[in-house]
Amino acid sequence: MDRALTLALRGPAHGPNPRVGCVLLGPPAPTGDRPVLGEGWHRGAGTPHAEVDALAAARARGHDTRGATAVVTLEPCNHTGRTGPCAQALLAAGITHVEHAIPDPGTTSGGGAQTLREHGVTVTTGTRAAQALELVRHWHHALTHHRPWVTLKTATTLDGRVAAPDGTSRWITGTAARTHAHTVRATVDAIAVTTGTALTDDPALTARTPDGHLAAHQPLRVVVGHRDLPPDARLHGAGGPLLHLRTHDVHHVLATLHEHETRHLLVEGGPALAGALLTHGLVDELHAYLAPVLLGAGPTAVTPFGITTLADAPRWHTTTTHRLGDDLLLVARATPTTEA
Amino acid sequence: MDRALTLALRGPAHGPNPRVGCVLLGPPAPTGDRPVLGEGWHRGAGTPHAEVDALAAARARGHDTRGATAVVTLEPCNHTGRTGPCAQALLAAGITHVEHAIPDPGTTSGGGAQTLREHGVTVTTGTRAAQALELVRHWHHALTHHRPWVTLKTATTLDGRVAAPDGTSRWITGTAARTHAHTVRATVDAIAVTTGTALTDDPALTARTPDGHLAAHQPLRVVVGHRDLPPDARLHGAGGPLLHLRTHDVHHVLATLHEHETRHLLVEGGPALAGALLTHGLVDELHAYLAPVLLGAGPTAVTPFGITTLADAPRWHTTTTHRLGDDLLLVARATPTTEA
Ligand SMILES: NC(=O)c1ccc[n+]([C@@H]2O[C@H](COP(=O)([O-])OP(=O)(O)OC[C@H]3O[C@@H](n4cnc5c(N)ncnc54)[C@H](OP(=O)(O)O)[C@@H]3O)[C@@H](O)[C@H]2O)c1
Ligand SMILES: NC(=O)c1ccc[n+]([C@@H]2O[C@H](COP(=O)([O-])OP(=O)(O)OC[C@H]3O[C@@H](n4cnc5c(N)ncnc54)[C@H](OP(=O)(O)O)[C@@H]3O)[C@@H](O)[C@H]2O)c1
Repeated sequence: MDRALTLALRGPAHGPNPRVGCVLLGPPAPTGDRPVLGEGWHRGAGTPHAEVDALAAARARGHDTRGATAVVTLEPCNHTGRTGPCAQALLAAGITHVEHAIPDPGTTSGGGAQTLREHGVTVTTGTRAAQALELVRHWHHALTHHRPWVTLKTATTLDGRVAAPDGTSRWITGTAARTHAHTVRATVDAIAVTTGTALTDDPALTARTPDGHLAAHQPLRVVVGHRDLPPDARLHGAGGPLLHLRTHDVHHVLATLHEHETRHLLVEGGPALAGALLTHGLVDELHAYLAPVLLGAGPTAVTPFGITTLADAPRWHTTTTHRLGDDLLLVARATPTTEA
Repeated sequence: MDRALTLALRGPAHGPNPRVGCVLLGPPAPTGDRPVLGEGWHRGAGTPHAEVDALAAARARGHDTRGATAVVTLEPCNHTGRTGPCAQALLAAGITHVEHAIPDPGTTSGGGAQTLREHGVTVTTGTRAAQALELVRHWHHALTHHRPWVTLKTATTLDGRVAAPDGTSRWITGTAARTHAHTVRATVDAIAVTTGTALTDDPALTARTPDGHLAAHQPLRVVVGHRDLPPDARLHGAGGPLLHLRTHDVHHVLATLHEHETRHLLVEGGPALAGALLTHGLVDELHAYLAPVLLGAGPTAVTPFGITTLADAPRWHTTTTHRLGDDLLLVARATPTTEA
């Protein structure tokens, strides 16, 4: 399973589909070792699933897969989507045992284990479940909750300001923090900002490499709010597609993005959008970039979202912290990682 | 010198005097090694200085110190304060060479090297200067600038709040962060808060051990502002002496504390005192405790202190960061440490 998890990581972190890895093992040799017949992983929507990829690899090497075991990081799918159902492919290949780490939460894709069992395949589950879930966190969350995983990014001073009183906010954080933020952008499906921030800051919302080039993957760019963007806004320039949602209803925003198969949304402000999401408990993760600066005045990271006393404020669970030059990144989740 | 620095660290971090260490080396043996005749360090005001302590140790071991070398982390003092001048003690002991890491900035205590040279002692300086300066940072700063080193402590949410809208601020940070803050209190000379914070929070401003006992050293407790404290305020209870300064003039506050030989002042708020100190550029170090909480409203850590545009905001230099449970401590200085 560890090998299957490693294979899964070769797939892209973004995109509508989960990262999955699969290892096919033949029957034990007289030494007790089980030969690896084939390995596979999923490379993204429209390409073969990990199981099918592994079966193809085994066949290409001339192996007979009958009686083999498939070790796969996610329950084999049961439905015909962009590709055929993996459960059928495994049955057709004569696989007799399947070990998967976690079940598929999809209402249409799930149920593969049941299908396999009905055809006499033994199916076990649960090995390395926490790691396997972490690998598909955003996708799993989206399929379970019917909305993207929402990461709220803030770049603030130590006194919580996102801009000075005159609106200047470039740059609160230093180069290392901004470079890090671009690597995060290159792994998400969509980035959202308010019209307010789009009009004030004129951001491009692209993922760029440290040398300033566009990264290979560009997330969908989402602007939330009623006002028009000027025709020369940088958001109309090179980068991911632009989606302007003329609403303040964050449920509507997330539902629309779910329809677009957005699994991971990065919200980069402004304060009104952050506050609205927090009001409805719709933020799953915080990326708080903190710069060693004090301003004493200026807008703060989030507008009021209904908290009047400390005991009512949700506690976040720190996952990791990174020192980035003089700045600091704190990553925290709404729910502790281990409880997932 | 490394040994002398290690000895110096045995002295207390607080108190009016610097931490100093001294090693006395005899003339080289035929092997080239130089025998250690005695070691000493300063244990705080009223006790012997490191050089005198080392001379006493050498004598107690029956060593002849004539012709010996004194390796000392700070220039030997030249004045008669609570104890006699070290320069004279070294001369009387027949020391012929002195290596000290950094000069003494004191107007009365300085000049020891000059006195020694006038009496034929060879004096060198500069080895491990950065480490030696760091060791006596607060004392050196106080003698140079005629005011204490000021550390501003804040305990905030990720959006910079020090309390919720209803004034509740207990506890923003968790146990590990609060325990850490108490260990810092046990190393400073004084802690200051505003009357506002004293009246709202009724803090004791004591240094406590994790099991709740008073630490051996209790800093001076300083309250700044015009209002009276109620007779039953916890500030009147067990702990360091209480000094109520009925002023808003932060220069006056620091001058008074300098007269009290306060070398290191920890300012624990409130926002008005923090803002006033920042207005006058009187904060040397930040201890920003950050909890993974968002509030969206409530007082922020510092009142406005004259910054309107980002380019005018002073940049702090991060010294260290510590993860403390789910919280984070960022320590930053007004000037980079290496430039000191
Ligand atoms: N450092 C950072 O991390 C960061 C990030 C973002 C922004 N900023 C700074 O933050 C400052 C704040 O900008 P701003 O005052 O324009 O605030 P903002 O929160 O960016 O924008 C407010 C506008 O957003 C729209 N909006 C979208 N969804 C909304 C909702 N659910 N509720 C209410 N309004 C919603 C509304 O515009 P319509 O009228 O068009 O609907 C509203 O007027 C700027 O100076 C910017 O530079 C900093
Ligand atoms: N989390 C934290 O780190 C932390 C730390 C401290 C406080 N807090 C919280 O912060 C909140 C703020 O309390 P607060 O509103 O009373 O504010 P504050 O800043 O604590 O107190 C303001 C008062 O301080 C006095 N003061 C002293 N020096 C001053 C100066 N240079 N300029 C102006 N005023 C000066 C004045 O009182 P006089 O009229 O008496 O002169 C003034 O009214 C409280 O809820 C407290 O719990 C949190």
